Amino acid sequence: MAKVTFIGLGVMGYPMAGHLKVKGGHDVTVYNRTTEKAEKWVAQFGGRFALTPADAAKDADYVFTCVGNDDDLRSVTIGADGCLSAMKPGAVLIDNTTASAEVARELETAAEARGCHFIDAPVSGGQAGAENGVLTVMCGGKQEIFERSRPVIDAYARMVGLMGPAGSGQLAKMVNQICIAGLVQGLAEGIHFGKKAGLDIEALIAVISKGAAGSWQMENRHKTMNEGKFDFGFAVDWMRKDLAICLSEARRNGAKLPVTALVDQFYGDVQAMGGKRWDTSSLLARLEK
Amino acid sequence: MAKVTFIGLGVMGYPMAGHLKVKGGHDVTVYNRTTEKAEKWVAQFGGRFALTPADAAKDADYVFTCVGNDDDLRSVTIGADGCLSAMKPGAVLIDNTTASAEVARELETAAEARGCHFIDAPVSGGQAGAENGVLTVMCGGKQEIFERSRPVIDAYARMVGLMGPAGSGQLAKMVNQICIAGLVQGLAEGIHFGKKAGLDIEALIAVISKGAAGSWQMENRHKTMNEGKFDFGFAVDWMRKDLAICLSEARRNGAKLPVTALVDQFYGDVQAMGGKRWDTSSLLARLEK
Repeated sequence: MAKVTFIGLGVMGYPMAGHLKVKGGHDVTVYNRTTEKAEKWVAQFGGRFALTPADAAKDADYVFTCVGNDDDLRSVTIGADGCLSAMKPGAVLIDNTTASAEVARELETAAEARGCHFIDAPVSGGQAGAENGVLTVMCGGKQEIFERSRPVIDAYARMVGLMGPAGSGQLAKMVNQICIAGLVQGLAEGIHFGKKAGLDIEALIAVISKGAAGSWQMENRHKTMNEGKFDFGFAVDWMRKDLAICLSEARRNGAKLPVTALVDQFYGDVQAMGGKRWDTSSLLARLEK
Repeated sequence: MAKVTFIGLGVMGYPMAGHLKVKGGHDVTVYNRTTEKAEKWVAQFGGRFALTPADAAKDADYVFTCVGNDDDLRSVTIGADGCLSAMKPGAVLIDNTTASAEVARELETAAEARGCHFIDAPVSGGQAGAENGVLTVMCGGKQEIFERSRPVIDAYARMVGLMGPAGSGQLAKMVNQICIAGLVQGLAEGIHFGKKAGLDIEALIAVISKGAAGSWQMENRHKTMNEGKFDFGFAVDWMRKDLAICLSEARRNGAKLPVTALVDQFYGDVQAMGGKRWDTSSLLARLEK
């Protein structure tokens, strides 16, 4: 049992912090920008909440962050009243935000300058994965710190891997999102074509999903896609945020991402159609428009 | 045990005909444009070979065709010495070629005009699937004829489904190839980016392949992609043939296939790089050029 702080109680962070308390059995203090959500969390799970990231983090062995983007992340860590200013030497900052590899390296440097440690640990598995505590966690950082943090992370994860030095967790998450972009567009074109061709989509998927066209997305999204149901899942706004990070990093490392860049534009069309909160599978709605 | 004819002993047809003989226990007669291959097949499996499709088909209950394209298919069925001219009333023509939905409907009409029947039955699973007799077979045609033919088809298949009237098997196969086009390009961009980012691809895939980015292609192709090994599998030339059929049908039914069309162009680049016989996963080689 460790002293754990969780900063950022969004759709992902709220249940993840809950698993650290209930499944992990840790002594958890939370912080959230809007205090109401922190109060609600404490009412549901026990523990304590604090009014600043620094105050929340001052006694912790492990400080988790799960916020919206690089700027929010800098604000709650190295900003005024950020957690790093208060963390005790030897404590580990574990960041679950999907952010740039750059900010991860920056935070490792800032943490180590204070005698603390850092792991970037973006997750995949969405809201359902967070609620069920079965997320995939892609970590970057030093082996020893990863080994020490892993049993704590396990409270909300099914699969945890160290991908390399700081930033590598973020780079792995980028690969994940790049693969999804092309895959979901291919699936959307396939289902769109199938409907235009008059095929029974359920019967079709039952036959092709076990073969070379098969994927998690086909298995888990074809039914809602066929029904035109998109008001759930991983929001297009968030996917575009992630793809912007991928495309920016690719500009740096020289990778060519022609279809990822195109699909990012397609998601722009979906946003313009009113689909900012729709699931990523809504690329189909754009084709059907 | 039925009298079966198999026309077209290519990389797919050769082992499929073998399964009809050995696993199905049928009385098999084969025909191939180059007779040497038919002689070799008979030396390996027994049975007989004939010198024309008509001669091969004259006593058969089921006549299978598995040739290169629409024109080859017309030639061995309704062309001079084509099998339909010799088939007895009630016999079923089962076409395993990946062809247009149009030619499937045309062949059903031609078969029925002679008192025969027709099933379009393109397969997926590649050379390995054919050799191991575990293909996925997408059928189009009449329910009763499908039910009668299914136990015979089972000799080389793991999954057999009726997708609708004649041509529907071909349309289902098109959906399969459309899904694969986007999926493989996304996977290629992901692995390309991961290599540029300095990630250990094996460690990365071990973590992300169970989640939302996971697919048959990721599972079965990441290792060879990472090694730059493309001299195996489903050839780019054949993929382009299939994508041409998809894009042509989409022109007819109005489906929008922007990424499929783009990936078809990318495969054109791979052909120009000398990759006509490379596996479809060679989209990665194009990005790395």
